[in-house]
Amino acid sequence: MQEQKQEYMRRALALAQRGAGHVNPNPMVGCVIVKDGKIIGEGWHEHIGGLHAERNAFAHCTEDCTGADLYVTLEPCCHWGRTPPCTDAVIEHKIGRVFVGCLDPNPLVAGKGAQILRDAGIEVETGVCEDECRRVNEVFFHYITHKTPFVTLKYAMTLDGKIAAHTGDSRWVTGETARRHVHETRNRLPAIMVGIGTVLEDDPLLTCRIDGGRDPIRVICDSRARTPIDSRIVQTANKIPTYIAVVGQNERTAELERHGVHILECKTKNERVDLADLMRQLGALGIDGLLLEGGSALAFSALEAGVVHRVQAYIAPKIIGGAGAKSPVGGLGFDKMVQALPLKDVTCTPMDEDFLIEGRL
Amino acid sequence: MQEQKQEYMRRALALAQRGAGHVNPNPMVGCVIVKDGKIIGEGWHEHIGGLHAERNAFAHCTEDCTGADLYVTLEPCCHWGRTPPCTDAVIEHKIGRVFVGCLDPNPLVAGKGAQILRDAGIEVETGVCEDECRRVNEVFFHYITHKTPFVTLKYAMTLDGKIAAHTGDSRWVTGETARRHVHETRNRLPAIMVGIGTVLEDDPLLTCRIDGGRDPIRVICDSRARTPIDSRIVQTANKIPTYIAVVGQNERTAELERHGVHILECKTKNERVDLADLMRQLGALGIDGLLLEGGSALAFSALEAGVVHRVQAYIAPKIIGGAGAKSPVGGLGFDKMVQALPLKDVTCTPMDEDFLIEGRL
Ligand SMILES: NC(=O)c1ccc[n+]([C@@H]2O[C@H](COP(=O)([O-])OP(=O)(O)OC[C@H]3O[C@@H](n4cnc5c(N)ncnc54)[C@H](OP(=O)(O)O)[C@@H]3O)[C@@H](O)[C@H]2O)c1
Ligand SMILES: NC(=O)c1ccc[n+]([C@@H]2O[C@H](COP(=O)([O-])OP(=O)(O)OC[C@H]3O[C@@H](n4cnc5c(N)ncnc54)[C@H](OP(=O)(O)O)[C@@H]3O)[C@@H](O)[C@H]2O)c1
Repeated sequence: MQEQKQEYMRRALALAQRGAGHVNPNPMVGCVIVKDGKIIGEGWHEHIGGLHAERNAFAHCTEDCTGADLYVTLEPCCHWGRTPPCTDAVIEHKIGRVFVGCLDPNPLVAGKGAQILRDAGIEVETGVCEDECRRVNEVFFHYITHKTPFVTLKYAMTLDGKIAAHTGDSRWVTGETARRHVHETRNRLPAIMVGIGTVLEDDPLLTCRIDGGRDPIRVICDSRARTPIDSRIVQTANKIPTYIAVVGQNERTAELERHGVHILECKTKNERVDLADLMRQLGALGIDGLLLEGGSALAFSALEAGVVHRVQAYIAPKIIGGAGAKSPVGGLGFDKMVQALPLKDVTCTPMDEDFLIEGRL
Repeated sequence: MQEQKQEYMRRALALAQRGAGHVNPNPMVGCVIVKDGKIIGEGWHEHIGGLHAERNAFAHCTEDCTGADLYVTLEPCCHWGRTPPCTDAVIEHKIGRVFVGCLDPNPLVAGKGAQILRDAGIEVETGVCEDECRRVNEVFFHYITHKTPFVTLKYAMTLDGKIAAHTGDSRWVTGETARRHVHETRNRLPAIMVGIGTVLEDDPLLTCRIDGGRDPIRVICDSRARTPIDSRIVQTANKIPTYIAVVGQNERTAELERHGVHILECKTKNERVDLADLMRQLGALGIDGLLLEGGSALAFSALEAGVVHRVQAYIAPKIIGGAGAKSPVGGLGFDKMVQALPLKDVTCTPMDEDFLIEGRL
């Protein structure tokens, strides 16, 4: 029975993830309705403003769901948001038992949805595959509590720790599978950020290059607004939302704005953009997740400022050498090895020839 | 039956590895004698000059081995070396069938031992767990064909590719399990090599610090014989064989010799030790395997010179940062990412919190 429950919840989790990149800053939620050992309805939260997972599952039921079991990855909501409370729908449809992945992250409402269902005579079990359900929505859980984006630092390096040759050449560090995985991450997260150093050196587009993909909002850390008007970022700013974080307005920022760029004026720290302040401003804009793609100077500042939550490091099994070749995290660096920031819950996933090592800070 | 055979051969392989570090430049060999589905004798090549695995297995037989099966990881020798041919012993003991892991690596004699046994009416099957048997003796197989040491480049770095903080502090990059594994490698390989940069900066001992461990022969690449007389290496040179590779003899080399150091005068390449020449000299000394422990300048030279055969990279899941922090492979580096040296047969092994990524060049 325990295994059966987990199987249905994992199915609900798989459905939940189909909403990736389309529901922010809402959570991804999946729902499965089971009767007589058979799935009779499935649904997920498909896009922001759309129906919640439970209501989508009811809409797709192939038979009457009276007395059925309902599996949902996140506690059903019990308040009026953009849509009426899901607890109402569960009660109306005469569901017999409800299995919940994890409770609402907002401690003020956590458990209330479950309680309303129990008061209506429905059997409720919470915490089915809880860790997995929380992990799928780590961005949402972070954002709802901190109101700043959940930041993932991503980089690709050789087995000897270089993101480029000493000449700057970096095509390509990793193979196709890993590069595709990066684009899937860009598709999943609402925003992407790099430093002006990377813009000046690589003139990147920072778009999501997979079929049907969604381009993330672009954020450039550029204290003195040095981003060139003829850069590909500025030239596409009218089509893809683009924010440039600066420490003061001037003629250059006005010019950038005329080209469609949004300027974010930030507090100053060490004469540069104060990253904690920038995160608060991005959070206020509804940006719940951010992919930090470098370069190495900005990566270290962000780690030092404590605004990074996850590291996603791709490692290509090849050696390029070079005392002068750039490494993924630069800046001054910590003085002692014991001060190095340790990762938690570390996993290593092979990606064809490459490896992806991930962990939380 | 196939599985049964592999099981006995793996047992023989496990026995073979007990000789690690004690048999160089001989191969590690293990042997198991089986009668009526029961192991009645086991042996391995224990130390250089000692009995071969087959003879040790016969010596430890608990019952008469007439008609028994014999499993041996390497083809039994058929020539007089330090000991009489093992084929004689197999025939004398009236073994019924012989299962061989891999044939003798010397193409001139490969298959001859098996043929002698067949001619004596013994059934012989070769190639049982062949890949595993070859891999265990990759050092031996390389040495026997090239007469130069099989070189393993080893380093430990943070997840952002640093072997030390920007201050030089490097205690410790990896955890205990990984560090112990390094000492096991030192115990297994007959020699260890570093550059003079590492000696000047760290004053290392390069010994094997595990109970009952065997210290490797130490080799320092030091073109101009700058190794300080009061370094720990020189101070222990009378106890642990120590070679310093230089490009010319002078007053300093004479002084080092007086302290028990062996000087290897090498050809010059770019005003430094010619590593290919050094490898030939080490090979002539009977050194079949070498652990290259850095530093980054020497590592790149060795890779560029094509004298490295294997990379053993420990990765600690932590981030230290620092544009000025040293990375494992320095030197000039290759110009283009496509020139990076790819590893083959790459494996990733978790070692408690750390990872070991290994591969062949
Ligand atoms: N292989 C990969 O995965 C990958 C990915 C990305 C980049 N790269 C490489 O990385 C290199 C660029 O890295 P980089 O280190 O030179 O530049 P960077 O990190 O992209 O940009 C650094 C610049 O950002 C600005 N900045 C604003 N606020 C900052 C803050 N709080 N902290 C730090 N910087 C802040 C600073 O300029 P102001 O003071 O003017 O604002 C600083 O000079 C390029 O070679 C690129 O190819 C590789
Ligand atoms: N964490 C780890 O795993 C680890 C391991 C080892 C070292 N390290 C660190 O690495 C650093 C030392 O590295 P390093 O790069 O400065 O020095 P290095 O590689 O140890 O030594 C370089 C020196 O070796 C000599 N050499 C002789 N023949 C050579 C050749 N063919 N090619 C290159 N060099 C040759 C050169 O000096 P001459 O021209 O005078 O001969 C050269 O300057 C230290 O900070 C140490 O802590 C870390």
